Amino acid sequence: MPATVDRFVSENQSRFLDELFDFLRIPSISTLPEHKADVARAAQFVASALESAGMEHVEVIETDKHPLVYADWLHAPGKPTVLCYGHYDVQPPDPLELWKTPPFEPSLRDGNIYARGACDDKGQMYMHIKAVEALRAENGGKLPLNVKFLIEGEEEVGGESISKYVPAHKEKLAADVALVSDTELFADGVPTLCIGLRGLMYLEIEAAGPARDLHSGMYGGAAPNAVYGLIELLAKAKDANGHIQIPGIYDDVAAPAAAELESWRRLPFSEEEFLKQEVGSSALTGEPEQPVLARIWARPTFEVHGIAGGFTGAGAKTVIPARAVAKVSLRLVPNQNPDSILASVKDWVRQNTPRGISTEIRVLSAGPAISVNPDHPAIHVAAQAFQEMLGKPTVFIRSGGSIPIVGEFAKHLGIPTVLMGFGLPDDGLHSPNEKYRLSNFYDGIRTIAHFFERYGGSGGQR
Amino acid sequence: MPATVDRFVSENQSRFLDELFDFLRIPSISTLPEHKADVARAAQFVASALESAGMEHVEVIETDKHPLVYADWLHAPGKPTVLCYGHYDVQPPDPLELWKTPPFEPSLRDGNIYARGACDDKGQMYMHIKAVEALRAENGGKLPLNVKFLIEGEEEVGGESISKYVPAHKEKLAADVALVSDTELFADGVPTLCIGLRGLMYLEIEAAGPARDLHSGMYGGAAPNAVYGLIELLAKAKDANGHIQIPGIYDDVAAPAAAELESWRRLPFSEEEFLKQEVGSSALTGEPEQPVLARIWARPTFEVHGIAGGFTGAGAKTVIPARAVAKVSLRLVPNQNPDSILASVKDWVRQNTPRGISTEIRVLSAGPAISVNPDHPAIHVAAQAFQEMLGKPTVFIRSGGSIPIVGEFAKHLGIPTVLMGFGLPDDGLHSPNEKYRLSNFYDGIRTIAHFFERYGGSGGQR
Repeated sequence: MPATVDRFVSENQSRFLDELFDFLRIPSISTLPEHKADVARAAQFVASALESAGMEHVEVIETDKHPLVYADWLHAPGKPTVLCYGHYDVQPPDPLELWKTPPFEPSLRDGNIYARGACDDKGQMYMHIKAVEALRAENGGKLPLNVKFLIEGEEEVGGESISKYVPAHKEKLAADVALVSDTELFADGVPTLCIGLRGLMYLEIEAAGPARDLHSGMYGGAAPNAVYGLIELLAKAKDANGHIQIPGIYDDVAAPAAAELESWRRLPFSEEEFLKQEVGSSALTGEPEQPVLARIWARPTFEVHGIAGGFTGAGAKTVIPARAVAKVSLRLVPNQNPDSILASVKDWVRQNTPRGISTEIRVLSAGPAISVNPDHPAIHVAAQAFQEMLGKPTVFIRSGGSIPIVGEFAKHLGIPTVLMGFGLPDDGLHSPNEKYRLSNFYDGIRTIAHFFERYGGSGGQR
Repeated sequence: MPATVDRFVSENQSRFLDELFDFLRIPSISTLPEHKADVARAAQFVASALESAGMEHVEVIETDKHPLVYADWLHAPGKPTVLCYGHYDVQPPDPLELWKTPPFEPSLRDGNIYARGACDDKGQMYMHIKAVEALRAENGGKLPLNVKFLIEGEEEVGGESISKYVPAHKEKLAADVALVSDTELFADGVPTLCIGLRGLMYLEIEAAGPARDLHSGMYGGAAPNAVYGLIELLAKAKDANGHIQIPGIYDDVAAPAAAELESWRRLPFSEEEFLKQEVGSSALTGEPEQPVLARIWARPTFEVHGIAGGFTGAGAKTVIPARAVAKVSLRLVPNQNPDSILASVKDWVRQNTPRGISTEIRVLSAGPAISVNPDHPAIHVAAQAFQEMLGKPTVFIRSGGSIPIVGEFAKHLGIPTVLMGFGLPDDGLHSPNEKYRLSNFYDGIRTIAHFFERYGGSGGQR
């Protein structure tokens, strides 16, 4: 990158940090109604920051819940357009007593910014704005490409408003690629692009047995138990080695290419550390013939998140529960079609519901996996920019989770997303003492600016 | 029975009913602290009623929770002694809106008394007092045998105080037999003695997986899930036909004698009606080779009453739960030893806990099954008295439930219990619109008086 942009970031870094601290002081907790005004204040903060950075058409868009913020700068004809996405809302900070410093009084310790939202996602989305500011400042008010911003305030509560907004504003949001910084580096100092996300199908399976809760003394031995019926059903979903037993579930699974698997083997990953420092159980589980990274990135899962039904209070109550409901999800991988997976699950549930029990399935959400082609020019350039900034080869990883907006951009705008995040695995998102490495904040600004320059300089290869 | 006692009951029946109504008006809900004074008032009511009936040494015994009431009349030397047990506390009446008339304003409709406690157990225990009153009134203040009363106010909340009192007062409570009227007729008009109760072992099984709840996207496929681990374990407890798979669990089960099985076949029981009117599911379950009555009376069960763990709120949360706990019980049958059953369960849990999961078992209670020998003189005489009063042969049944006090009397006092109840299967104990058939209240008083006369007349065969 031109030394001038680099110097601008260096010269302004304490101001950038002061601004971010002001942003972090706003308790924009989207799930708590008593913070609605704070969420609105955070939206205004974002809008002002975009104005200051020289963005145009800055809008705070009211929705049924929390505002969206839009802005653009479109004076680079013939150059590609990048749609920058981020969110200014945060998770609740509970449990408060576990924070070493208050969640909304940002504090700098050991080279880290501690605050709720430091990494997820205020600190990361603010990098986009500062990158644009730096580029304009050092280029006479011009950018090397066209930029649009769409920032939401409901990411932590389901993102309903943006899901409605995107398909209704396809032309306004048209772009060549989206940029999202809401992910992490695979390890400290390792340039990382995420090119695959699993899909998610979330279901409720409800079981009904007797007409009402029964006394287990008077009926136990002859009456069906809804909780046990559901247990019997769900236990059949996987064998002891974690292989899903639903017929057809693996039929369409696209295995990662040999080269991708090989690249995962070169990642700085220790199964032992993963088990001890992250999972904390006595053993890892799942398909033994699959490497751990494949299990969490490239294999479908069947997970039971909870069961409600029967008696779970203190002490003893001898009830045969009439009803039970389980929260169940399947993570989907590339080439799996949510509709046909749902059909397979429904067939399987019907065929495996125990005698005396009836079951019903409710679909809460269903989205396919996302793959980004690493040969797409934007990804290619992003990888180069990353490598040039951090001085190491960029690694391409996947994430086992789902970022629904990436699917929405693909579906409605027809664009891939560059998932270029600067968090670290131990940043504690959604947990007490969330942090963001200060150097990653500055490296991120520089890397994004460099990506914009390179992608603009590529002359609009799309 | 002598015509005089019968006439006394007839002549005093409206007074008896008025008294019972006064008793039923006291909301002696033992589980609700705000009704503590009402519970105490009900204890005083019982004490006064015992005084009025001519009982001596009437005591209201304070305990850590609710009072016990003791009384006796011991002026029949050489005759047997009967220990009458009952309880004056009741279940909460919720849901109130389902009651046709208020739960604590007793109402007479269609030959039934409607009130909380009408059958369970105020109406039934009051029969004992009125039987004694009638016998004394018509026999110059004398009874045909010795009588002790021990009435508790904690039956609906675990009966802790009486459990401590009985072993500490063995001599005071010494008797030949106990009499409990807290059960029901097998069907309307059928004289019924219950001669077997299943035992109960109530356990909590807790499973631990990861050190904390994990994100199912980031860890799903490789991290153990405590809820699913518990599901996998519990599903192995029974096969599809309800046979318990815990090794050794059936080893000591005493099968009912051929004659008892044959007597069950003659009972007025319809599997179809049991399914449709009582259970209300699409099919009965359990061991197909066992008759339904054997399944609920004479076979051990493994029941899951509920599981807590993970996310069970509205909507979707993608958590891999770190912890889960199940409430589990085993009903035990004659000859099963709770200690060795517990050892078998512990072994089985240890051997079947899935990889990556650890489990812990907590025992909340464990009591063996109770069998009463139908050839015991008191049972024999009770059956005769019953048959003579209702004009039909007495049937001997079992109950699949547990009445812990029967076990305490057997263990600490070495006496069997006559389980002579006059409820009906549809009396709705613990439910809204609890009722007690008015004619059964009067028949019960007469039958109990007749039993006392016959048992006293038997000259103390013990």
